[in-house]
Amino acid sequence: MEQTTVTLEFGPSYRKVEVGAIAILAQDAPLKLDSGAEIAAFPLAYQTYGRLNADASNAILICHGLTGDQYVASTHPVTGKPGWWESVVGAGKIIDTDRYFVICPNVLGGCMGSYGPKAINPKTKKPYNLEFPVLTIADMVRAQKLLVEQLGVTKLFSVIGASMGGMQALVWGSLYKDHVRSVVGIATAPRHMAQNIAFHEVGRQAIMADPEWKEGNYINEKRFPAGGLAVARMTAHVTYLSQEALSRKFGRNLQDRERISYGFEADFRVESYLRRQGTNFVERFDANSYLYITRAMDYFDLAADNGGRLSDVFKGTRAEYCLMSFSSDWLFPTSETREIVHALNGVGANVSFVEIPTDKGHDAFLLDEPRFLEALAGFIRRVGKSADAN
Amino acid sequence: MEQTTVTLEFGPSYRKVEVGAIAILAQDAPLKLDSGAEIAAFPLAYQTYGRLNADASNAILICHGLTGDQYVASTHPVTGKPGWWESVVGAGKIIDTDRYFVICPNVLGGCMGSYGPKAINPKTKKPYNLEFPVLTIADMVRAQKLLVEQLGVTKLFSVIGASMGGMQALVWGSLYKDHVRSVVGIATAPRHMAQNIAFHEVGRQAIMADPEWKEGNYINEKRFPAGGLAVARMTAHVTYLSQEALSRKFGRNLQDRERISYGFEADFRVESYLRRQGTNFVERFDANSYLYITRAMDYFDLAADNGGRLSDVFKGTRAEYCLMSFSSDWLFPTSETREIVHALNGVGANVSFVEIPTDKGHDAFLLDEPRFLEALAGFIRRVGKSADAN
Repeated sequence: MEQTTVTLEFGPSYRKVEVGAIAILAQDAPLKLDSGAEIAAFPLAYQTYGRLNADASNAILICHGLTGDQYVASTHPVTGKPGWWESVVGAGKIIDTDRYFVICPNVLGGCMGSYGPKAINPKTKKPYNLEFPVLTIADMVRAQKLLVEQLGVTKLFSVIGASMGGMQALVWGSLYKDHVRSVVGIATAPRHMAQNIAFHEVGRQAIMADPEWKEGNYINEKRFPAGGLAVARMTAHVTYLSQEALSRKFGRNLQDRERISYGFEADFRVESYLRRQGTNFVERFDANSYLYITRAMDYFDLAADNGGRLSDVFKGTRAEYCLMSFSSDWLFPTSETREIVHALNGVGANVSFVEIPTDKGHDAFLLDEPRFLEALAGFIRRVGKSADAN
Repeated sequence: MEQTTVTLEFGPSYRKVEVGAIAILAQDAPLKLDSGAEIAAFPLAYQTYGRLNADASNAILICHGLTGDQYVASTHPVTGKPGWWESVVGAGKIIDTDRYFVICPNVLGGCMGSYGPKAINPKTKKPYNLEFPVLTIADMVRAQKLLVEQLGVTKLFSVIGASMGGMQALVWGSLYKDHVRSVVGIATAPRHMAQNIAFHEVGRQAIMADPEWKEGNYINEKRFPAGGLAVARMTAHVTYLSQEALSRKFGRNLQDRERISYGFEADFRVESYLRRQGTNFVERFDANSYLYITRAMDYFDLAADNGGRLSDVFKGTRAEYCLMSFSSDWLFPTSETREIVHALNGVGANVSFVEIPTDKGHDAFLLDEPRFLEALAGFIRRVGKSADAN
């Protein structure tokens, strides 16, 4: 197995950072994408935690969300911050790396080493930029399947994901029924709804309106649409939180001042918080990747991609499913999760469903939300026991 | 009374358009703003409909929202479209201009002829731009009071507003208790909440990130931050609609095509709709006005501005109040309106309240929403009868 590490450039300053393991996939035969494009010998970056057991039955695939990456349980090389789900994944934790072999790939189209718009087109010796093929969630999953096989895993103990990661988990359950023992979909949906497409479109327009975007070719000139990407992130970030969480966390509290300034500085804490979200994000994320990944989410419609009936998607599944939603998540509301649960029930699948009461909004899966963590731990324990019994 | 019309320039092309009646206010004594700044002999643009009766008892003041203007019931000189509330205001309509004298001013800080950041600073002979004083909702109301007096009205039959217009109506009821017979607040709030501040901040950042904004001085160079302003409008527009309305109106329907394009064109109808909202908006609105008016809304906190207790704000009122909210309005949810109603009840005020069941979101007040229109008509009729009886 070919494996390497690469140095990538990040942010407006094109700071060089070494990114971990890379697998080169589809070396023997190209991978055909939904658009019709074919890609071959392409890199997929990933991290693993724990060890694969002798019968390769303990592998858990974790699928990240829109702006996540493979650093699920180890320090992020760009930001220096802990992995995005270190509270859940690690030795002795809910997803116990003493017991399970955890694989977390950076999605196809991502910017942390996986094949994406920053990749160099061998014909032009320049980045693909917008000539990179437009992707779907299923394309991301097909690439993950190649990686999982290359790592010696035929059947996953579980595939787990939240938000866009949950979309991927559902596609795994649909495309590779015999290769997943269990599927966990958190704060996700069977399709991307109009409001979510609308918010993504706002973000894309913010990026594309930034003159530094250069019609997508900013890397060629070492420019960067930092302003547009920051605005895209700020918009999205507001949608990840609930109104209650924002009110509780910030209310109308002022930032480092006693009175309003009668100016356009960040008077309110929520403003300075948002500005920080924007400026931090552009240091670690690529603007074109943001376009490609949001587009893949917008295109996601599991039923339409499978003849129109959602239950048909899951026909014949023997996997155990766990679906979880958060009561205050208005981006991926419980009603969307219920549609998945109904479809699974419709084909007699083994499915657990819980709506977690919380005021933390969509991002609750990243936070210390005890009832959510208990439910997740309980499901993994149960699947583990039924696996032991087989 | 001095009155004139002016020609203003609009949009990225600086197209010249004649705008209607302008009153010059605060000619004898300057108006002191909340920031401490003083303004004198400033213009306020307005439209009137109907005739003031002999005892000046039939005047209704209509306060517009963030991006509205004085063209409430007549053709808009820039867009050529009908007034923004022509379905409600006019001869024989709910707000009957055969019976009432309707006044609709463009807010202080606005861009349709009222004193705002586009105004010329007599000292520099250039637009004020960001040297224009930052405003509050109360400042806008104080300017309206001067206009109403100049038009010969001491006591308004009603002051009516939705969204930011509702904030103004509440301030009228608070500052000028003896000068309003009734107050109608639609889809409004006693303060601007964290989530709303956050969305406004995203819009402001989009404008300020546009290099064409030129640190606020774009007019001096005949430039225009069209891209940033369009993104600000698109973000806001999504928040004006409900998820249900967006799903019903657009769902995942494609625009002028049978299949997705695997590209970044507007595949989905909701995308092309949003892009159109953005491009139309920049033709009629000023970017700096957008900064000033959103800021005024963010600063709005009726209780805090009056010692901390919302009920104190309304103490001693004899006006009849009508508060209305829309069940699917997540920007100005019913819970916010309820706080106003509780405060009014707390001081024994005469208050009607109704939550209109609708899936049309915040913008329902602009749409054909029969139960809302009936409630509004009923309240105006009732106040009219009690006025006749006095």
